[in-house]
Amino acid sequence: MIVVLSGGVGAARFIEGLAAVVAPERIAAVVNTGDDMVLHGLYISPDLDIVTCTLADVIDRNQGWGIAGDTDACMQWLARLGAPTWFKLGDRDLALHIYRTARLQAGATLSQVADEIRQALGVAVSIIPMSDDPAPTHVLTDQGELHFEEYFVRERCQPVVHGVRLHAAGPVRPAPALLPLLMSAEVIIIAPSNPVVSVGPILAIPEVRTTLTTTNTPVVAVSPIVGGAAIKGPAVPLMKAVGLTPTALGVAETYADLIDGIVIDTIDAELAPAIQSRGIATLVTDTIMRGMPEKMALARATLELASLIAPSTARSLV
Amino acid sequence: MIVVLSGGVGAARFIEGLAAVVAPERIAAVVNTGDDMVLHGLYISPDLDIVTCTLADVIDRNQGWGIAGDTDACMQWLARLGAPTWFKLGDRDLALHIYRTARLQAGATLSQVADEIRQALGVAVSIIPMSDDPAPTHVLTDQGELHFEEYFVRERCQPVVHGVRLHAAGPVRPAPALLPLLMSAEVIIIAPSNPVVSVGPILAIPEVRTTLTTTNTPVVAVSPIVGGAAIKGPAVPLMKAVGLTPTALGVAETYADLIDGIVIDTIDAELAPAIQSRGIATLVTDTIMRGMPEKMALARATLELASLIAPSTARSLV
Repeated sequence: MIVVLSGGVGAARFIEGLAAVVAPERIAAVVNTGDDMVLHGLYISPDLDIVTCTLADVIDRNQGWGIAGDTDACMQWLARLGAPTWFKLGDRDLALHIYRTARLQAGATLSQVADEIRQALGVAVSIIPMSDDPAPTHVLTDQGELHFEEYFVRERCQPVVHGVRLHAAGPVRPAPALLPLLMSAEVIIIAPSNPVVSVGPILAIPEVRTTLTTTNTPVVAVSPIVGGAAIKGPAVPLMKAVGLTPTALGVAETYADLIDGIVIDTIDAELAPAIQSRGIATLVTDTIMRGMPEKMALARATLELASLIAPSTARSLV
Repeated sequence: MIVVLSGGVGAARFIEGLAAVVAPERIAAVVNTGDDMVLHGLYISPDLDIVTCTLADVIDRNQGWGIAGDTDACMQWLARLGAPTWFKLGDRDLALHIYRTARLQAGATLSQVADEIRQALGVAVSIIPMSDDPAPTHVLTDQGELHFEEYFVRERCQPVVHGVRLHAAGPVRPAPALLPLLMSAEVIIIAPSNPVVSVGPILAIPEVRTTLTTTNTPVVAVSPIVGGAAIKGPAVPLMKAVGLTPTALGVAETYADLIDGIVIDTIDAELAPAIQSRGIATLVTDTIMRGMPEKMALARATLELASLIAPSTARSLV
């Protein structure tokens, strides 16, 4: 399997390209659940839904999240009842949250529910939450400790961040399928997702980090930082807040003990020597995924980098 | 207060007329919760919603339940996910269930939530669930013991009924506000609702029955059976199944130890002497509530009957 450690929008787009380049049945997305929260009594899992709905081709392409053509009749009535409305939930979207919540209450695990939704929506890529345990990411700000979605959506990234607390609810065990998957992987890809709050929570699971630092399987990352900026989301302020440099070099340094290679954007070509000097194979290419051709090209480049690192794996990849 | 023991559609329409005849602030609806159920993890309270949404004038007038102009985007996606779809839930409608479920999970009582929704929707009539305890009504059928909504909606009243089990989850205490309300009432009206599964669960609360049999307050019923048929719903088979006669006379006999008077339809005028011979004052009038004039006329007739029974109360009623 080709395993992709995934956040939301960037990862979902990357995997779309990957699934057009290799058989989707050979791909497994391990998805961040640090953004998960309970709102209106409903269990909401933003990154699982973004990845699943993108691969099911039902995503709202303009937003990158939510379901295409969705309506907000329920939300309008929740507002009328005085419920909080800062987190928009479309009517179709709500079906995912209602279904997931009911199944969890009936005793299913998050892994099981993610797989049920994936199958129902006809997605061939395996989708695995990083953990079945609660693993909320908190952002430490000048307005106090906020859940990531409170910081990101409700406060629109306005508070000044001075730190991040991963796994804020206590120890987080890997999802049952996760370690076997990592150990049998042909290649492990760290998607172009926020290193702090998207990939960070996955890597903060002790068994995941240990596996990645000791595996012989090639581990390659795709930098989400291009020209010192994030394609989407608050990667820059969050990287700064935890002492990371918000550049492609900073991303490589963040993952230095885990990765064998990294794909960075053409605009950051000048950073390649510094990354390579740290023993990280570096592939420079266009990484902005405007449409399917760019997504597929990025996927191919990433697999090519992995095959350069582990030539014996190469022939089986594409 | 004018207290109305209420089921769903018939009661809601009756109270609409009543609230146009006396100040709505003087009316309290005590609503059956025997139909309540959890579906998709959501706490659904059909009669509370029908009464509240009718009085808020947001009800779907064609159906008698659900919210006018509602859509079914969420339900369509729940179906796509393989969730059961026999109980239709509109997108606006879902907001009530989501809000109620979240509030209950946060520790609020059903009484509190009913009042919050009532206020949010601008209803001046007090709305009180009969109990804050679970009180499911089960129907004993040739297909086994079914929740009332399974019998009524899912199985469309097709199974042969041989009995009804009220309060199937165990002892049911009156809602905190209920007994004080009954004891201070000027008049107690039993709405034109199903005697077995709508009014029955309210009267099956021991303290309610005791209060009604011992009170000096006039208690009057409006027959939901007209010409041997129910205006709406399965009153006839359910009355038969529990050994009651499905006529206006049968309704009077069902409530004989509780009521001082009953309003029956003109079409049933010939039954009046038999009812009166049982010591129950009987007012014969048109009871079919086609529009607001008929609703108001029925409310006036019911209050008139109550005032004939208790002349000292009469002057204060209208």
